[in-house]
Formats: sequence, structure tokens, C-alpha cells
Amino acid sequence: MALNLTQKLVQAHLAEGDLTPGSDIALTIDQTLLQDVLGGLVMLELEAMGVERVKVGLAAQYIDHNLVQNDHLNADEHMFLRSACRRFGVWYSRPGNGISHPVHMQSFGKPGQTLVGSDSHTPAAGSLGMLAFGAGGVEVALAMAGQPLNLRMPRVRGVRLTGRLPDWVSAKDVILTLLARHGVEGGFGRIIEYHGPGLEHLTAMDRHVIANMGAEMGATTSVFPSDAVTKAFLEGVGRGADWIPLAADDGATYDESEDLDLSALVPMIAKPSSPGNVVPVSEVAGTEIYQSYVGSSANPGFRDFAMVAAIVKGRQAHDRVSFDINPSTRVVLETLIRDGQLSDLIHAGARVHQAGCNGCIGMGQAPASGRNSLRTVPRNFPGRSGTREDSVFLCSPETAAASALTGVITDPRTLDMPCPRIESPRMVAANAAMLVPPLPEDEARAVALEKSENITTLPELGRLGASIRVPVMLKTGDDVSTDDIMPAGARVMPYWSNIPKTSEFTFEPIDDTYPKRVRQGGRERAGHAIVGGSNYGQGSSRENAALAPRYLGLETVLAKSFARIHWQNLINFGVLPLTFADPSDYDRLEIGDVIEIADVAGALSAGPEIVARLGSGGEIRLRHDLSPRQIEVLLEGGVINWVRARLAA
Amino acid sequence: MALNLTQKLVQAHLAEGDLTPGSDIALTIDQTLLQDVLGGLVMLELEAMGVERVKVGLAAQYIDHNLVQNDHLNADEHMFLRSACRRFGVWYSRPGNGISHPVHMQSFGKPGQTLVGSDSHTPAAGSLGMLAFGAGGVEVALAMAGQPLNLRMPRVRGVRLTGRLPDWVSAKDVILTLLARHGVEGGFGRIIEYHGPGLEHLTAMDRHVIANMGAEMGATTSVFPSDAVTKAFLEGVGRGADWIPLAADDGATYDESEDLDLSALVPMIAKPSSPGNVVPVSEVAGTEIYQSYVGSSANPGFRDFAMVAAIVKGRQAHDRVSFDINPSTRVVLETLIRDGQLSDLIHAGARVHQAGCNGCIGMGQAPASGRNSLRTVPRNFPGRSGTREDSVFLCSPETAAASALTGVITDPRTLDMPCPRIESPRMVAANAAMLVPPLPEDEARAVALEKSENITTLPELGRLGASIRVPVMLKTGDDVSTDDIMPAGARVMPYWSNIPKTSEFTFEPIDDTYPKRVRQGGRERAGHAIVGGSNYGQGSSRENAALAPRYLGLETVLAKSFARIHWQNLINFGVLPLTFADPSDYDRLEIGDVIEIADVAGALSAGPEIVARLGSGGEIRLRHDLSPRQIEVLLEGGVINWVRARLAA
Repeated sequence: MALNLTQKLVQAHLAEGDLTPGSDIALTIDQTLLQDVLGGLVMLELEAMGVERVKVGLAAQYIDHNLVQNDHLNADEHMFLRSACRRFGVWYSRPGNGISHPVHMQSFGKPGQTLVGSDSHTPAAGSLGMLAFGAGGVEVALAMAGQPLNLRMPRVRGVRLTGRLPDWVSAKDVILTLLARHGVEGGFGRIIEYHGPGLEHLTAMDRHVIANMGAEMGATTSVFPSDAVTKAFLEGVGRGADWIPLAADDGATYDESEDLDLSALVPMIAKPSSPGNVVPVSEVAGTEIYQSYVGSSANPGFRDFAMVAAIVKGRQAHDRVSFDINPSTRVVLETLIRDGQLSDLIHAGARVHQAGCNGCIGMGQAPASGRNSLRTVPRNFPGRSGTREDSVFLCSPETAAASALTGVITDPRTLDMPCPRIESPRMVAANAAMLVPPLPEDEARAVALEKSENITTLPELGRLGASIRVPVMLKTGDDVSTDDIMPAGARVMPYWSNIPKTSEFTFEPIDDTYPKRVRQGGRERAGHAIVGGSNYGQGSSRENAALAPRYLGLETVLAKSFARIHWQNLINFGVLPLTFADPSDYDRLEIGDVIEIADVAGALSAGPEIVARLGSGGEIRLRHDLSPRQIEVLLEGGVINWVRARLAA
Repeated sequence: MALNLTQKLVQAHLAEGDLTPGSDIALTIDQTLLQDVLGGLVMLELEAMGVERVKVGLAAQYIDHNLVQNDHLNADEHMFLRSACRRFGVWYSRPGNGISHPVHMQSFGKPGQTLVGSDSHTPAAGSLGMLAFGAGGVEVALAMAGQPLNLRMPRVRGVRLTGRLPDWVSAKDVILTLLARHGVEGGFGRIIEYHGPGLEHLTAMDRHVIANMGAEMGATTSVFPSDAVTKAFLEGVGRGADWIPLAADDGATYDESEDLDLSALVPMIAKPSSPGNVVPVSEVAGTEIYQSYVGSSANPGFRDFAMVAAIVKGRQAHDRVSFDINPSTRVVLETLIRDGQLSDLIHAGARVHQAGCNGCIGMGQAPASGRNSLRTVPRNFPGRSGTREDSVFLCSPETAAASALTGVITDPRTLDMPCPRIESPRMVAANAAMLVPPLPEDEARAVALEKSENITTLPELGRLGASIRVPVMLKTGDDVSTDDIMPAGARVMPYWSNIPKTSEFTFEPIDDTYPKRVRQGGRERAGHAIVGGSNYGQGSSRENAALAPRYLGLETVLAKSFARIHWQNLINFGVLPLTFADPSDYDRLEIGDVIEIADVAGALSAGPEIVARLGSGGEIRLRHDLSPRQIEVLLEGGVINWVRARLAA
């Protein structure tokens, strides 16, 4: 049978299950990736599980989020992660070495391998023909411990690309166009596989842009073939030997298919405050801006910066505009310096920051209140920029550069200049000293974890009770993101490895009374439920968005639908995720209503349907979608308890 | 009569008084300088005074401190300052254009002119033969309004330089050596004038280093002649026409004199946590470090960065060390890029930040707790780095570079390499668009100040009462800095233009109960006194260190001695500064003791001695050192009331 590339990659890594969409499968994992804000928890989880040394083929830890050191917290964390890498046998990418995804791609990306990362943009590695998943940190911890990754076999959507992008239109406009088509839930339960003749004009870094923001559609991951373009990229970073050709079999089919003619695309922009709120740039042209911001894992390639430099060269950013350049990696930064683009950017007024995620995650560069910020980043959820009342637009580097010059949102096609041609240069060789290899095992065992008062140990979580009887303490709308549940930014992220402290910020952007209300009467853990709308938990893979409310007593979430990674995170920390059999039942529940599920273990095993009784009388029909393994994990109070019991046995 | 250069500069600007040391003088002011954290208050003061447009020859506002935008506050402030510059006729140096002192020097520095700046390191301009003073913001506001600067004629200390610096020893070691000799109070009431044959080997930027850190000795300012070296600097920045020769008259004398043989110097380092705590580097060599930090107004020259680049070129910073490079200005940054040094730094592991003050003032780059940080900055007061329990050493770029490589404090003379020779390059031309000129007056009058909820108006301050009867609410030790009174850092600085909010942080590093205690019973303003040791209020010129406690009800400070700028700030905001006639009386006062001064106006006018009665019985003899004008200002409740009354009259 002719297989598409996704099926071939899955089949090559199948530890359990088969290729039937919707069936439970387990995949062997070749590589893992951690970033710093979630890496701390993962290292504490490895410690809590009793793991001595990672068993995965390659594990890497990147320091790319918590780079602004306003006090000792972030620097302390860097020291902790460095010690944990030395202890557990993990590559350590030093602060300022760059964003995990492009650094990983350039240093370790290998066509045909699987990757799990504690970051929702891990699928960017699909640009090289990898099968790459974002997951909660504890899933990554399990993979680091040598366990396969459990998931449900997604449907595969084939996107056939034809034509070639016009002048002033680039990869960002491709993915924004797809977001305009499908919205932020359009990729649920799907892997997006790109194929067709249009691919040959998309470089590996262009593909990275598209695969990265597949996460914004809710896709499980995105996959590109490994072809001559991939080979050229790997040769460019000195790893031509790692290339193998990979493509769908001739005659392969997809569970669903669509076409995209690249030559018909125009500059697109996502308006505040959702990546799915996409319109042509021309529709909002002329809107005054405060900031034009270039960087992040969504536009990390040399060409993305070089294009901006070519557009602004010899001109000046408008004097009202903060023109922020966040280089993605040191290799890109060093190449931009060598080839003159950095000078052009700075001379045009750019503020250049160290290589890393920076303002994309609210770590600096927050915009003025109520002013418009144009960004080449992947997300514009409310407040993610660090400014609570923000107004962030997502666009291509071309649009960001044109708008920086004029001070208003500008369709780059209206600039009075020919579209620059960016040639792929020979990149500056990576500085190997910035990516520190694992210690040999005998040395590693002697390394002590350098903890601080802010990084201690994980709280113990108890088993799920025999029955659930809890009040609803929060009711949310649709599309609640993990940024809403657990805010990021420079104020909160330094505490992300500290669950008691972090829990104080839970749901702050939506309802900052939640942590106090659920602890009323001084109870550390007051059992409760949350009622959510559809796409509950979209966005970032941060597992503290599950762990912190669980720490505060959350036992179950009833929602219209869940975003995949957060759904898995809830299970991993012992919180029962249930969906409404009838979505209109959402309207029947309010804060204070008591929900009762008798004999939880029996109810879960009996089938997908669960009936809950309401304290006010009446019933409500709910559904779960848990595998037998997930039911086990839930009943044990989460995956750490579950693994520890298995390792002890 | 033969005059020294200081006397000549004073004489050329005398509006009132004569050259007798200790006598009250008033100087006409040619230029003013504001930075952002204190500029906001100054703009609000201009508004409160009713000023329509600045009357000084040149006024410049720099955005160099509040560069890390963790939320909307700093960006909002930038927008406010931009509007205030447009409103009042002030040059606006955009965020990321660089640190005020070197940018001002390169853009506006003129031998023979006077300068007042709302930053204690303003005396750095003495490197070009200017007479430059740091002052509280309201003094700068007065100068901007066309008023002369009132001060007491300082004594002039002549420092005769001979010889030439050895290899591996640089300007920072000169000023650290003087700090070792004189301590942090050694410059009180003095202007330090450098002369002698050793000068010819010190570039203008070397002189900047020395003049900058004269502030750390408590000197009123430092002065260098304008000579061939000065001419070369001005020609290098395209302003050769601004050069005039300036030097002491032949046969001039000084109030006090000393010699310094440059050829005898060795690398020096200030240990935590005072710039006066200086020892030879060799004495602490081998101490493990977490951070090596290069930048700030204390070492802002191209050569300071180029020297570090030459030392680390082709080598690697130790993998435990955060090797932070903070370019001082965009011109330096662009030149380092063009000539290859930035690549060398980055390839050796440096984290490069935007041009500005950054970590020097705790705006990012805070070290890990309890770990040693080596810095080329001017100050290491406790907690100034942003980390409460910090451990900061001050050293030269040579020492910082050597230590970055080894991971321990290292005397650069012990490196196994020849000392690099740094030639002064032709600097990249400044980007004029980053320094926005004042609007024409008719356009300016139509500009509205863009205020935010955090930037409103100054609180009104009442007149001083007929008598003072207040309890002591705080007793401090010696050398309390304005960092102790009003903490800096990324957490507090965004509020510095908001006095009610800022007052909540007053004295936090010393006694965080102070704001609550003085407001006990909910009183907004509870009259009280503070008892201080010697050198009370050293360091930064921040006037909110006077205004915020005044807002909380502070009426008088009794101290062994005062640092000059803070003393003036207290007067300007209506707080009576008094010294103990007998310093041992300091020991007689404790928190809760009530101090009573009857008929304050009469007592102040009657002479320098004041007798206070203690609530417990007994008396205490105090002294004031106020000019008749200062007494007037005090009685009116501060200089804003005083000016407003005069402008209205």
C-alpha cells in the first residue's frame, strides 16, 4: 500500500498500535528538546521519577525564554539547568545562544527522526522531514527516560502546493493564509503534510516558518519531505551526512486534501488578538503603529532578517516606532554581522537584542498601552506581549519592515522600491562552545543539582478519589489559551518551576480572584471543577497550566472541546477532562453548581459516556476520550506517581 | 592673578558671587541633560512651574535607563518623554541610542561650556573641558527654565599626572587608585582638576572614565583641560569647529594638590559593596565568578570594548560565566560591527544587549544570588545589580575580559599573551535620526503631553510649619546611598515618575516597614524625622529619594554629614537637612524619640546653629549650612512652590 510521508514516519517508529486514524499508538522517540521556562519542571520531574540518566538518543536543553534578568531568579534558574544537564546527560545551550527550534534544527535536526519538545512550536522540525511533537514537560520527561510517546493516530491532511510566491510575499503569508482558511481549531487531530511542485521554491527555513505556525491551527504537527532543499540546508550547516531523502510513496493518499497556489497569495496579517483573525494587509493599511518587531521562532531564518535589512537600508524607522530586532540564533546574528545586514538594521534605527525568544513571550519589548504592535511572532493572544491591554498584529518580515519605515501598517507591495533578492549565504560556523555536550556518565553521577529557594521539588499529588463531588469555581468562554490559564511574561515566568508560587497567578488574565476563591478558608487544596468552552487550553504547551490549578484542587474540567496538548497535560497531572455530550449543556452550569460523579474508576472503564449529577438536581451527560493507560494514570493521580510505581516495581 | 582651569570656567559663568571656596555662587548654564528615569519628573516639574519652552541653549533628553519593557510602563514613559520633548523644545535621544553621557559628549560636548544633568555621572563631560554638574531633577528643570545654578564654590584639588600607564592597566585603574586613596567621601566639596604631563597619553574617552567616577569620590565635578587630545576627539566625531584650547594659567595654584605617577599603577578592583573598597586585583585573584559584564558610562569608549574583544578573540568565555556586553552608544556599536570586534565578542560567547545603561542600574543582567559578578560599571552598592544579595566587583575592561576567559578573577597581566594595542578608529558617523531635534516653537505649543495613568502630575507640597515636632521614624548607618532610599531596578524604576506609587518602595533595602510605619493609622502624611550617619544620600542624583519620603511626611533629616546632591534635593523638596554639632549625639537618638524645633524660620535665619529639644527632655545641638535663598525655598515647601510664586509675581 502506498503510504504518505506521515504514515511512513509513524510506521518506522511504531511501538504500539497501527496507522488507523483515531487509534491509540505509541512511538519510539529519537530526540527531545527542552526550553528553560518549562525545562526546570522537567528536570524536577526526572528527579521525582528517580531517573538517573536520560535514555533517549539525544536530549537538549535551551536557555532562550528567561533571558532578562531583573533579579536573581532567572540567573539562578540558568545555574540550576546547567547543573541538571550535567547531572542527567543533556546538551546545554547557553543563555543567548538562540531560540530552541532554529538552534535544534541547525545542530541536531535529522530527516526521519522523531522529536518531542516541551514547547508547542517543536513541530517546526517537521521542516526537515522529522516527526516532531510539542508536549507537556512530563511527556518529554518520559521520553527522556526512554518511554515511547503515547498519542492518538491523527488524520493526515495533504496540502498540495503549486506555483511560486510573488514578490513581497513570503512563507509567513502562506501559513497566515491557511489560518484564514481553517482558524485556530482547523488542525485539531491532524498532521499537515505538505507536498507538490510548489515546495521546490520554499527553503528549509521557509518550511520552518510554516511548520512552526501549524501549531496555531491546533495541528498535532506538520511534515515536509526531505529533498534537495533539505540537503542544501544540512550541507550549509556542515551536516550533509545527516541527509536522507524522504517523501510520500507514489500514489499515496491523504485522509483529507487541499490545494494552495502560492502564486495567488498576497501579504496577510492577523489582527488582535488571535492568530486566526487573518485579513489581507491592504485591509488595515494606514493604521498607526508604535512598534515593529522582527524575530522569534516563527520567522527565524537569515533571510527573514536580511529581507528586513534590505528594505530599511539607507532609510530610517519612523521616530515614533520602536523597531526591535530579536536575532533567532547566534549563527544568524554572526552572519548578519559579517554580511553587513546588522549594520544596516542598526543604522536604520533598530534596537537589537540578544538571540532568544524575548518579547515574543513578554520577556521585554512590551508595547505601550493601547498602541499597535506589529510582530513577526507566531502568537498574539491578549497580554502575551507583556502589556495587558495590548494590540498585537502578526505579519511577515516584509510587512514589518515596510511599516517600520512609514509608522503605519503598510502593504510592502506599495513601497516604492524593487523587491530585494536575498541569496542564502554560507552561514558562519556555529560556536560549539555555546552548546555544551553531556558529561560522561561517571562524572555526571557526581554532579549535584544546584537548587535555589525558588527551585525546590515538585509537590506530591494524591490519587484521584473514589468519587468526585465538587463545586464549579470558574466558567470560561471559548478559546481560552494556556496564556490565560498561566500567564507568561517577565513577572511570572521566573517562578514557573515553583508551583506553590506560580499557582498564585493562575487564571489571572481572566479572573484574578480564582486562586483566592478556591483557597477560601485557608484550604491549600479545595476540590473544584472548571467549566470551559471550545478549544480549551489552546496555545503553548506549558504544563503548569494543568499542574498549578491541580495544586489548587482542580479535579475535573468540563468543556465543549480541548486543545490536544493541554488535554494531555490535565491527564498527566490527574485532572479529569470531560466534554459535553450536548454542547448546549454548557449553558446550564454556573459558578457554585456542584457536580457529582460517583465511582469514577468504574464510570471511566465502562465506556466513553459519563453521567454527572448536579447538586441542584438533574443530570448532565459527559464524554471522555481516555485510553486505558490514561485512565490508569488519572486514577493514580498523574503520570509521575504512575511512572514511579512502575520503576519501583 | 593666575587661575586654575576650574576657576577660569567658573569665572566665565559667574552670575553671582566670587571664587572664594565655600561662598555661595550662581552659574549661568549652557546645556542640560536628562535621562529617562528622572526625566519624567523634570518634565512634570516644568509643567508644574508653568514653563512654556526651555530657555537654556541646549537641552537633551536621553532614553537609556528604562529599556527593558516588561509591561506597558516603560514604553508608555518613552511616549510621554517624546511628547514632552516636542512640547518644551528638547532634543530627544530615542530608546537604544545609547547612554546619555557618551552620546552627549559625542553630540554636544563643548570645551568651556557648563552643563547640568539629572544624573550623578554628568561630570563625565569634564573630560572635554566642560564644567558639568550632576543635580537633582528640579535643579535641571530650573536651568532649563533659564535660571542659574546655585551652589557653594568648591575647593579645587589639583591632581598632577605624570608617566604613562603600563600594559594591562587603563583609565579605570586610575580612578580606582584614587578611590583607594580617598574613599567615597574624599571628594566632598571639591572639584578635581587634572593636569600635568601624564595627560597627553590619556584619550578623551580615558578622561571620561576618570571624570565619570569622580562622582564615586563625592566630588562636585572633575575637570580636564581642552588640548590636542580633545581636539582629536572632536574632529573624530565631526565637530572639530567646536574645539577651543583651555588650560590653567601658568603659575596657577590649587586649594589642595596631589601627584599620581601613572607608570606605577597596577590593575585594581573594588570589592563588594562600595566603590571605595579598592584593592589590587592580585589580592582577590582566583575567586570564582558567575558573570563578567562590560559596559556602562564608566567604560563607554570604543577602546574599552575593542580591548575586551582583542583579549577574547579566538578564545571562549568559561561556560559557567554570563559574559554580558552592553554597548554604550550606537556609534560605538556600529564601529565595533564594522571593524569586526563585535563578531569576536559574540563568537567568544558574549551576550550582546542594546545600547544603554541596562544592568548597571539593575535593568536586566542581574547576577545569580550569592555569586560574584565582575563589572566595568561605576557602582556596586548592595542590590543595585537587581539581585538583593549580590556580590559585585568593579574593574577595568582588561580584568573583566581576562576573568571571563578563566571563570575566576584574573589579573590581566597573568594572561599568556601580549597586551593588545587598540588604535582609535574613524568612528561610524552618528545616525542623526536617532537624536530628534526640538520642534519649532509654534509647532511645539500645539503638542499635548501624552500622559498615562502612571504619569500624572506632581503632588502638591505644603509650606514648612512654624515649628517642627516629629518623632524619629528611621535611624540609618553611614554611607546610606540613594539606592538604599529609593531602589532602582526593573521592578521600581518604571514608577519613578509616580510619587504615590514610588513612595511604597522608600527605604525598602534598609527597612521595608518604613512606608507602612510612617503611614500608620492611614495618615497620608505623618510628620517625622530620620537620623542618618555620615555621607547620607551618597550616589545617584535621583530626587525621588527626597520627594518620596517628603510625600510620606519627612520634615527633617539629622545626620553626621550629607552627600552634596541629596542634601540639595532635600532642600528643594522642603525637607530640612541638619548635621550634629557633636557627631556623638547620633548615638543619643533612637526610633520614637521626639524632636522639637520651635520657630523654624527664626532659628534658621539666626545663624548656623540650631538647638532642638528632645521629647524625652534634654537638648541636642545641630547645624545647618543653608544660604538665605535655600532658607526661603525650604520655608515655602520646596523649589517648585518658590519658582511658581516668582513666575506668578
